[in-house]
Amino acid sequence: MSLSIIPLGGLGEIGLNMMLFECGDDIIAVDAGLMFPEEEMLGVDIVIPDFTYLKEKRDNVRGIIITHGHEDHIGALPYILKEINIPVYATPLTIGLIKGKLREHKLDETTELIPVKPRQIIDLGCFNVEFIRVTHSIVDGVGIGITTPVGRIVHTGDFKLDQTPVDGELLDFHKFSEYGDKGTLALLSDSTNSEREGYTLSEREVGKAIENVFKTAKKRIIVATFASNIHRIQQVIDAAVKFDRKVVLNGKSMINNAQVALDLGYLKLPPKTWIKLDEMKNIPDEKIVIITTGSQGEPMSSLARMAVNEHKDIQIEEGDTVVLSSRVIPGNEKAISRIINHLFRRGANVIYEDVSDIHVSGHASQEEQKLMMCLVRPKFFIPIHGEYRHLIYHARLAEMLGINKDNIFILEDGDVLELNGDVAVKKEKIQAGRVFVDGKVIGDVGNIVLRDRMRLGSDGIIIVFIGIEKMTGKVVTGPDIVTRGFVLEEESQELIEEMKKVVLDLLGQLEQELMSDWVLVKTKVRNTLKKLLIKKMDRKPMIIPIIIEL
Amino acid sequence: MSLSIIPLGGLGEIGLNMMLFECGDDIIAVDAGLMFPEEEMLGVDIVIPDFTYLKEKRDNVRGIIITHGHEDHIGALPYILKEINIPVYATPLTIGLIKGKLREHKLDETTELIPVKPRQIIDLGCFNVEFIRVTHSIVDGVGIGITTPVGRIVHTGDFKLDQTPVDGELLDFHKFSEYGDKGTLALLSDSTNSEREGYTLSEREVGKAIENVFKTAKKRIIVATFASNIHRIQQVIDAAVKFDRKVVLNGKSMINNAQVALDLGYLKLPPKTWIKLDEMKNIPDEKIVIITTGSQGEPMSSLARMAVNEHKDIQIEEGDTVVLSSRVIPGNEKAISRIINHLFRRGANVIYEDVSDIHVSGHASQEEQKLMMCLVRPKFFIPIHGEYRHLIYHARLAEMLGINKDNIFILEDGDVLELNGDVAVKKEKIQAGRVFVDGKVIGDVGNIVLRDRMRLGSDGIIIVFIGIEKMTGKVVTGPDIVTRGFVLEEESQELIEEMKKVVLDLLGQLEQELMSDWVLVKTKVRNTLKKLLIKKMDRKPMIIPIIIEL
Repeated sequence: MSLSIIPLGGLGEIGLNMMLFECGDDIIAVDAGLMFPEEEMLGVDIVIPDFTYLKEKRDNVRGIIITHGHEDHIGALPYILKEINIPVYATPLTIGLIKGKLREHKLDETTELIPVKPRQIIDLGCFNVEFIRVTHSIVDGVGIGITTPVGRIVHTGDFKLDQTPVDGELLDFHKFSEYGDKGTLALLSDSTNSEREGYTLSEREVGKAIENVFKTAKKRIIVATFASNIHRIQQVIDAAVKFDRKVVLNGKSMINNAQVALDLGYLKLPPKTWIKLDEMKNIPDEKIVIITTGSQGEPMSSLARMAVNEHKDIQIEEGDTVVLSSRVIPGNEKAISRIINHLFRRGANVIYEDVSDIHVSGHASQEEQKLMMCLVRPKFFIPIHGEYRHLIYHARLAEMLGINKDNIFILEDGDVLELNGDVAVKKEKIQAGRVFVDGKVIGDVGNIVLRDRMRLGSDGIIIVFIGIEKMTGKVVTGPDIVTRGFVLEEESQELIEEMKKVVLDLLGQLEQELMSDWVLVKTKVRNTLKKLLIKKMDRKPMIIPIIIEL
Repeated sequence: MSLSIIPLGGLGEIGLNMMLFECGDDIIAVDAGLMFPEEEMLGVDIVIPDFTYLKEKRDNVRGIIITHGHEDHIGALPYILKEINIPVYATPLTIGLIKGKLREHKLDETTELIPVKPRQIIDLGCFNVEFIRVTHSIVDGVGIGITTPVGRIVHTGDFKLDQTPVDGELLDFHKFSEYGDKGTLALLSDSTNSEREGYTLSEREVGKAIENVFKTAKKRIIVATFASNIHRIQQVIDAAVKFDRKVVLNGKSMINNAQVALDLGYLKLPPKTWIKLDEMKNIPDEKIVIITTGSQGEPMSSLARMAVNEHKDIQIEEGDTVVLSSRVIPGNEKAISRIINHLFRRGANVIYEDVSDIHVSGHASQEEQKLMMCLVRPKFFIPIHGEYRHLIYHARLAEMLGINKDNIFILEDGDVLELNGDVAVKKEKIQAGRVFVDGKVIGDVGNIVLRDRMRLGSDGIIIVFIGIEKMTGKVVTGPDIVTRGFVLEEESQELIEEMKKVVLDLLGQLEQELMSDWVLVKTKVRNTLKKLLIKKMDRKPMIIPIIIEL
């Protein structure tokens, strides 16, 4: 019997995390994450992994294990559960967050959600899965130890080694070292920060920075952070209690997540401290802290609206302090920068990662990554969760620690690594990749559509329509021209008249018999206009000739 | 008599630098830079400042002074010179770089380019302009001291305090301190790095990192950097000479700039060391270094093509070392990251800013900014060159050094600050802003066009055409539907048929007299399809109904 390790996502990109383990007729999946679209994926809302392989083997799938509640680990779950109804195993807070998501997709009643605890062991076919506590930027995260017929596997999930976590729940060093002691065949470990030397700071360090803000702020404090970062929210609440400020939670996901965490006991927010948005007006500015969403500069978010003075309830005033307590996700730099500038223009003091220790990462840096390898002492090492460069850096660390180079595997999505006792072999790839969700529809936007969008978006479109008399080939209507995203039509009448004239001249020159070949006429119209516009403007709008036969 | 300081660009953004000084009937401009388009400026090639004010007062303009040869200081020059023929004053290398640019725009024969030297003084109307050497990430940079009837002004250009510059040309501490001693009314100083504490490292530090690469690289070395960073190029050449490698220059702007710098004596490249691309094949890999453009991940650049193995002459091979010796310009993070990943995939060792000291900034950090203020001791302080947040941080430093808060002015593009002896007053704004260059045309792409491009780019377009008999209002042709960037038509025939049916049903329900009101029919067609697509797909493509009367 052999074991296959098959990444469907997250190996070669940040996000989209999903890993399969297959052994005989049993498959388990670990995580089912989304990725936010990259710049060139125009109009795409979210990206999910291609899970065709899972669909094809649906009868073998024993369950999905979710390591923690971040979108890049749970975001694809509704799309998968719509097609394959499988039980989902996760810790209570993760289940709480998943439930909200499934409710939106009307899947909450049909899905089997099974809460588990750290050190609990479940049997899924030939897999024996043990949950192991890790520390990360969301509470209740776990890694897993999997005992299989060919040996033990450890999958860290996302982790850091926070020695002073806000909730006191340490990473389970003892369990990881037990796996090292008993002997582990393969370690799959989080590579996100493998380019960073040293140690990642403890979440508590942010607490100190937050307290400093509270010590000096003269008016309102507005803290933007990820709605899932319960520890960060807790630390802001703790400071509010200490410095006697009331807390307003703002933003739909902030309120929802906090409520889930409160209900499950992961968040402590004294009833007297928590006030509603409309109670704010009765309380002096220096007694208020608002915890809000929008730390990534999302254009419709609360914080973005505050920054341009378009928020219904919250106006930024001279002397307010705004804290962006979050990292800048690559791609969002400009949007965040713009919000910071607007906030400064409105007279706020803005505190952000570039100028303050107001954020720490949730991922292990090199020394922590090495420690994980030393604890688990695997035979094979597989860096997971990261772009190719992160995987390479993580692999280099493994080599430095003495893991045989031939036993380190840099896998990418769709690769199949077969482990058979002491032998590991890369097999033929399976179907994998990225599926685009645009609006309600999954997968109908492909490369051709994206290429067209790119073209339309950069130079616009010109529609030319011409009515031609069938019998004689004579132009009886038009040419008329409609443009969008090309030039301001009112101000470019001259150009449009010139285009019409060029088309008319062309049609006049064509022989009558050619005029009946519409495809040819269209191509000629397109090429003639294209040449004109390149010469005159150096632009290449999309040109759509429409010929109507009368 | 009073003096007005009028920023046309660069105050509120990185790039687009242009500052006017006006005194009576005399105007001088300092710099004329471009900005690269932001994400939402779809299809825009470059952005230049709105220089309407300069055009209106063209008879008063005495000259343009250029502080150094970076695009954000010279890039708008051709567009301005096309409309106003004014003499341009700059140091020799800057003139050399401007010449190449003017040649492309066929302006090289008609423009008066006047070379100046540091400490040289020129008279421009009532302005007495002295050039002062500064150190920056391009050679031959200057700041200026301007003596006017109302007092002395110092404009730093872009600068850092490099105590060990590669060419030995120190920032002219003595001249700046002379201005401080004689008494200076206003200092305008570079704010780019005002968020960074401490000192910016010397360019020589990069030299050490480069040498380390040469010491350990086993095969070819490929260094990507800005073509304008002559000192960086010099340091790579120096290392090549020391470690006995031949140098290949690659990329049009790299070769052009190097040639200009060589001709003027700013670059030293021994003839024996410099080889052409096609001589490379006769030389062993470990004896080659290629200096190339493409450090910003530009998709058509040499480096990008190497990364995906589409470069005509250079293939990346296992064991090659690729160095990205440049900063990541905000907005380019993803493109650069993608190239790094591809290079790693091809087996190269990639060295970049995140993991090595392979780049230093060209701009002063806080301690240097403070030193500049201490040297010049101005009455008024105006932070320039930066986003709003950079200006704020720089202003805070000035306050910390004891400059009166009321004497610190945060100006934005179009503001007018009038200095009159000891009094400074903000006057009414003049016209200023950003003008988009798309292809060969300037200024015809405005907000409406951009909004349409955004819409087209994110959801595509649907064109519906219908032929209606004039007399009866009956549909005689169509409805036919053409889409682009919406869905893959071949795979969505069902949807397209549904759309046609919905339109036909609608038209069938309309009364005959309504059918002659085209505007109404079009609106109804558009709204009906819009509703269908939102309900079915949650998408909002642009819908263009075209009705032809027969």
